[in-house]
This record gives sequence, C-alpha cells and structure tokens, in this order.
Amino acid sequence: MREVYVAGVGMTKFGRSEFKSQIELFGEAAMDAINESNLKPKDIQALFVGNAQGSADEGISVLGSHAAGEIGLNKIPAIRLEGACSSGTAAIINAFMWIASGFADIVLAAGTERNTASPGEVATRLMNTGPHHRYEGPTGITFPGVFGLVCHNYAHEYNIPMPRLKEIMCMVAQKNHHNGTMNPRAQFRKELLREKYFEAAVVADPLQLFDCCPMSDGAAAIVLCSKEAAQKLTNKPVQIVGIGQASCGSLFMQKDYCRPIARETSAKMAYKMAGITPADLDVVELHDCFTIAEIVATEGLGLFEYGKATYAIEKGETQLTGRIPVNPSGGLKAKGHPVGATGVAQGFEIVNQIRGNCDARQIDGAKIGITDTMGGPLAAVANIIYKRGW
Amino acid sequence: MREVYVAGVGMTKFGRSEFKSQIELFGEAAMDAINESNLKPKDIQALFVGNAQGSADEGISVLGSHAAGEIGLNKIPAIRLEGACSSGTAAIINAFMWIASGFADIVLAAGTERNTASPGEVATRLMNTGPHHRYEGPTGITFPGVFGLVCHNYAHEYNIPMPRLKEIMCMVAQKNHHNGTMNPRAQFRKELLREKYFEAAVVADPLQLFDCCPMSDGAAAIVLCSKEAAQKLTNKPVQIVGIGQASCGSLFMQKDYCRPIARETSAKMAYKMAGITPADLDVVELHDCFTIAEIVATEGLGLFEYGKATYAIEKGETQLTGRIPVNPSGGLKAKGHPVGATGVAQGFEIVNQIRGNCDARQIDGAKIGITDTMGGPLAAVANIIYKRGW
Repeated sequence: MREVYVAGVGMTKFGRSEFKSQIELFGEAAMDAINESNLKPKDIQALFVGNAQGSADEGISVLGSHAAGEIGLNKIPAIRLEGACSSGTAAIINAFMWIASGFADIVLAAGTERNTASPGEVATRLMNTGPHHRYEGPTGITFPGVFGLVCHNYAHEYNIPMPRLKEIMCMVAQKNHHNGTMNPRAQFRKELLREKYFEAAVVADPLQLFDCCPMSDGAAAIVLCSKEAAQKLTNKPVQIVGIGQASCGSLFMQKDYCRPIARETSAKMAYKMAGITPADLDVVELHDCFTIAEIVATEGLGLFEYGKATYAIEKGETQLTGRIPVNPSGGLKAKGHPVGATGVAQGFEIVNQIRGNCDARQIDGAKIGITDTMGGPLAAVANIIYKRGW
Repeated sequence: MREVYVAGVGMTKFGRSEFKSQIELFGEAAMDAINESNLKPKDIQALFVGNAQGSADEGISVLGSHAAGEIGLNKIPAIRLEGACSSGTAAIINAFMWIASGFADIVLAAGTERNTASPGEVATRLMNTGPHHRYEGPTGITFPGVFGLVCHNYAHEYNIPMPRLKEIMCMVAQKNHHNGTMNPRAQFRKELLREKYFEAAVVADPLQLFDCCPMSDGAAAIVLCSKEAAQKLTNKPVQIVGIGQASCGSLFMQKDYCRPIARETSAKMAYKMAGITPADLDVVELHDCFTIAEIVATEGLGLFEYGKATYAIEKGETQLTGRIPVNPSGGLKAKGHPVGATGVAQGFEIVNQIRGNCDARQIDGAKIGITDTMGGPLAAVANIIYKRGW
C-alpha cells in the first residue's frame, strides 16, 4: 500500500445556514481545502462526499456529481457515501484507498449536511431512520432515547450513582463548551454554567438539553495525496497512518450498550495498522453526540479502562491541559454536528493540531491524533489516525 | 495495484417485492453470491452497498450496517454508496479499491433497492431529486423529460426523421424484451409486439410507455477477491481489468445531451486501464433506462460512431447473435431497474456470460465484457470491464 498524506483542509463555520444549500456549503469548505493545498480544482482526480440525509431533507440525489460541479469540475469520479454520522469519515477512508491502491494521486474527501433544512418533527423522523426499520424504528426509539439507555446501563453496570454520573456528564459538556469558545468555527462559543446545565429541560431521562449536541449545518473538506505529491505541496506534512471501520448491524445485535462492538473492532484495527497504542495519542476528536457518548467513547478507544472514565474526567485528564485532551475543537457538543460533515471536521481539527495552527486551543507538541465517528444507534464506527509526517 | 477477481455473483428475481424489504432482498442476493464463492459470510472482510433512495422511501439510514447484520456480520466495515442509478457500480469500484490497495482480500459489493415501496407520486418526487435542486428540479423536469429531450436532440443533430428514430427505439425495446424472455430473473419475460409498442400511452414525447424501463425491486451481489484468493475459490476466474467513473455535475453543464461528458470520460478511462478498445468487447450491459438511452450509450461506449447507432441497430448488430450483443440480460428495460442494484446486476450478467452460464441467452465464447451505468440526469457514469482470468 502506498502512503497517504494530507495536503490541506477546509471547513465552514458550523451553525445554521439559512440560505446556503449543502452543495454551496461543500463548495466553501472544498475551496478552502484546495487553496490550502496550493492546488486548483482541476488538480483533483476524484471526489468523495459524506452526507447522511441530503436526499431526504434538501431533496438532492447524485450529490457527488452536483458537488463536483459546484467547484467547476465536470469530469471526475464523484460519489456520495452514507453511513449516518460516520459518513464523513467513510468519505476520507475511501479517498485513502484510491490513493493507497495507486489509482489516484490527489483526491478530495468532504462532508456536508444541512440538518436545519427540515422542520423539527421532520428532522426527528429522519433521525429515526437510523434504528432497524422493522424491529426498532417502529418502537419510536430516538437517538436521545438510545443514549438515555446508555446512561442507565453505565450507572448500573459500573455501580455509579446517577447523581454522580450526571455531575461528570456536566463536566464533559462544560469542557466542550469551554473548548468551543476558542474555536472560531464552532456553533456555540459560550461557557456553560453548571446551574444552566442542571436547570435545562429533560430530553430523554437522564439526558437534559445540554447533554445533547445541536442540529447543525456545515461542511468540511480534506485533500489527500500520495507522498510524492505531499512533498511538493506542503511543508507541514500529516500522514494517515491508521484506518479503522466496523459495523454492528442493529441495536439488538449489541451485547453491551456501554461497549459498542463497532468501536472496539474499529479502534483495534486502526491502532494495529498504525502500530501504536492509545498511550501514544496526543489528541482525540471523538463522537460526543451526547455527553454520555463521550464517556463511553473514551473507554472504547482505550484511553481509560472500562468503567474508569468518570474518574479520569473528574481529574481533568481530558481537558485541553490534561493528560489526553479530548475534543479540543469543542466536539459535536459545542462545535456542532452537521451529520455528514462531522468526521471530516474532526480530521480538520486533528490536522490543524498536528500542524500547530490551533491558537488558544493548541495542544503543545501534538504529533499524533485519532478521530472517532459513530453512525446510527451504535451501528457503525470509523476511526482515522493522523501523524506528523517525515 | 493488486489484481482483483470475481469469486461469485448472486441476484434476486427483479420485479415487485411486496413483503421483502431492501435489506432482506440484499440478504438473498448476498447469500447467493457468498455460496457461489464457496465462502461463508464470516469470510467477508468489508461490505459496500449501492442504494439510491433507501433513506427516503423505506426510511433506512446506515443501510450498510443493517445489511451486514442481515447476513449475520456484526463487525465488518460496511457502507452505503449513493450515485443515483450508478450506485451499484460505485459499490463494486470501491470494493475493488480495498482489494487493489492490499487493505482487504475478500470484499462483498452489492446493490439493493425497493422502488415500488413508495406510491407513484412519491416515487416521481424522489426521482426528481436527481436534477440540480436549485436550478433544475424546480422546473419540474423528470427523467422521461430529460430523455424525451435527448430523442429530439438526436433526431435533429443527426438529421434522422422522428418516425425513423421511433422505429429504431421500438427495435431496441423488442430486442431487450426478447432477451428478457430467456432470463429467469427478469421482471418482464414477454415478447413486445410492434403494435403494442406504438399504441402505448405517451409518457414524455416522443417516449411512450415501452420506451421506459419499469419501477422495480431487487438486489444483486458480487464477491471480489485477490488473485491468491480467487485461485483457491474458483475455477471460472473473471478479472476486473478496467474501471471508469466520471461525473458531469448538473444538466446545465452538458454540452450535448447525445454525448454525455461523464460517459465519454468514464469509458475512456476504463478502456485505457484495460488496454483494450471497444472492438475487443464480446458483450455489453448498458444503461437502457429508456430506449433512446441505449442508442446514445452504444455510441458513448464507442461501439458505433456518433450518429451511426441507428443503422447498426437496424442491421441487428446489437442482437444476441449480432456483432456486439447489447443487454443480453434484457437490460433495465425488461430485466427491471431497482436503481441501486442495477450496476451489480449488470456485473452478474457479464460474469455469467464469461463463465458460460447463460443458457439460451449465452453468447458463444464471451471472454470480455463491459458494464455501463448512468446515475442522475446524465450526471454520473461508471463502467467496469470484466475479462476471463488466467
């Protein structure tokens, strides 16, 4: 397999896009990434776009082709990948394969989504397409419902009183909001007060409003290239050294909601390929669609032992200045979660951390980082490990 | 790049699936392909599923994961690809890359769709998501509308009187219906009488009912593998020797509807990689979503010069016994067109032709064949060239 590098990254501000469609959001992020790579659109040889719900909410099929057209390209291979919230990471992984195989030298991977395009009740119905459509969807289970169950399972399994678990969940939310204040592209840039967290409406017990990431619009893009191309294009090389991807069909196939099978499998695959252990990581961007999701993800990624994350979080280990900073970008919680864009936006943050471009939220000397995206109700996980090059 | 082979193929009957969902249809085709490959599901290392509208019509997201679950797999990487009608071919292409890169040895690519799940007016609205959502969709243009325009352009550009063009379009429909009578998996297995063709309702002038492929449900699957694996698994080896994929953003980016840019680019790419010319082909499965689409596709693939296809068709050159048989399976027209499954079903036919498994519709000594799928309104084309192995 050929080595694969990052030439450049781009990202829109996340939040609400009243007028720009997801194709236009894509165009903005893509041009940022192409410009940063010292390339022109015509240098791009193939395009992969992660997008979860564009055909249902904005009414767009063949999004890959339309997206290519948006940046003036009328010939390249272009395709959309859908793996719910892991769509963006899947786009990067397949772009990686096209270069690794030798089929292409310079490929653009992107993610775009406009989740606020639908009224709330439609959006909720769309989100409900994640559980199995015959066995689970009809029960009416929602994503907050799934992660509410995860909270109760976690508290029960590890014998943690719910009030204590809620305190840790509040810390996770506060940390990510704090990190978001330093990220100009984040949807929320305000500190979260403890009082505000605990006073907020209950969404799905014990999840309250500030346990949940927002609905967001936005796009992110990343140009991948061969080593030869990278040597010409950048003096801040970042290599993709590990790829992990796994599924676990439907909710009823999980043995333990606190240890999603897909994450255990995917993370193991990525660490093995990169030849590293979790202890080698300097920075982590993971899938905190809910505060409890961050807690279980830190364990699934091997940052902490199972059942031990709350103690580490309490000690500040996941803070920007902690032993292993988690979600310096603000995470899905504060940066926002335009579903198909999320995995690519995580890559944007890790690449910028490794390149030392993160200003106030920069992690000193970050050399190696992992991204983690979970699609559907624990159904699909994809991980990518980025490392400072040559 | 490593060589990539076909281990086995599978396919459901195409038609109307009243009770089986697209996940269950996938399961049927996938198990056929896995059994034919002398494998068990657990041998599959990754899964790619082509599907155009599952999240909108049946309400299924993360289809890749649910599909993996359907065949008992709860760990493998699994993802859905969407490129409208080219989705299935895109699934095969990305499965190809995972093996070509050395990342995997045995990968399942499949396509599934249940287009009859939606009532007619909803299905029409879904199909209308193909044109550009801001510039074209709002005009109300439909796929029959686009290909009706292609007819008029073709007649005008090549100075062919419409009554003559319609006679050739009737011949295309008759040929594909005739081929379909010999395909046990085809949706339509009845000869088409000339009178019936000309008496049918007008859909979008000059297209009448029998110029149009049907709405269909169905799935197809193909197991790809490395050469080493193929040598153990099959004594009827078929190699993928050419890959082509290209886009042409939106309709307004086309210069000539009779010569879609995406097909010209994609076919050229595939022939170059395979090191062959169109004259080397023994069999062709191409995208006859409408009869006129077959006519322009034969030219775009280089089987005939631009403007000359009608004369060759008139002489019977594309018939089963002709110089270059086109759509021996019955094509989209008679075999059916479950959108995301189509590209994989084309592969099913070509692989079986090369293996000599096609009974009454077998093309003697077929050694090399091409598939051609067009997604959206001329927006995306993907081609694969299959060749008898070692």
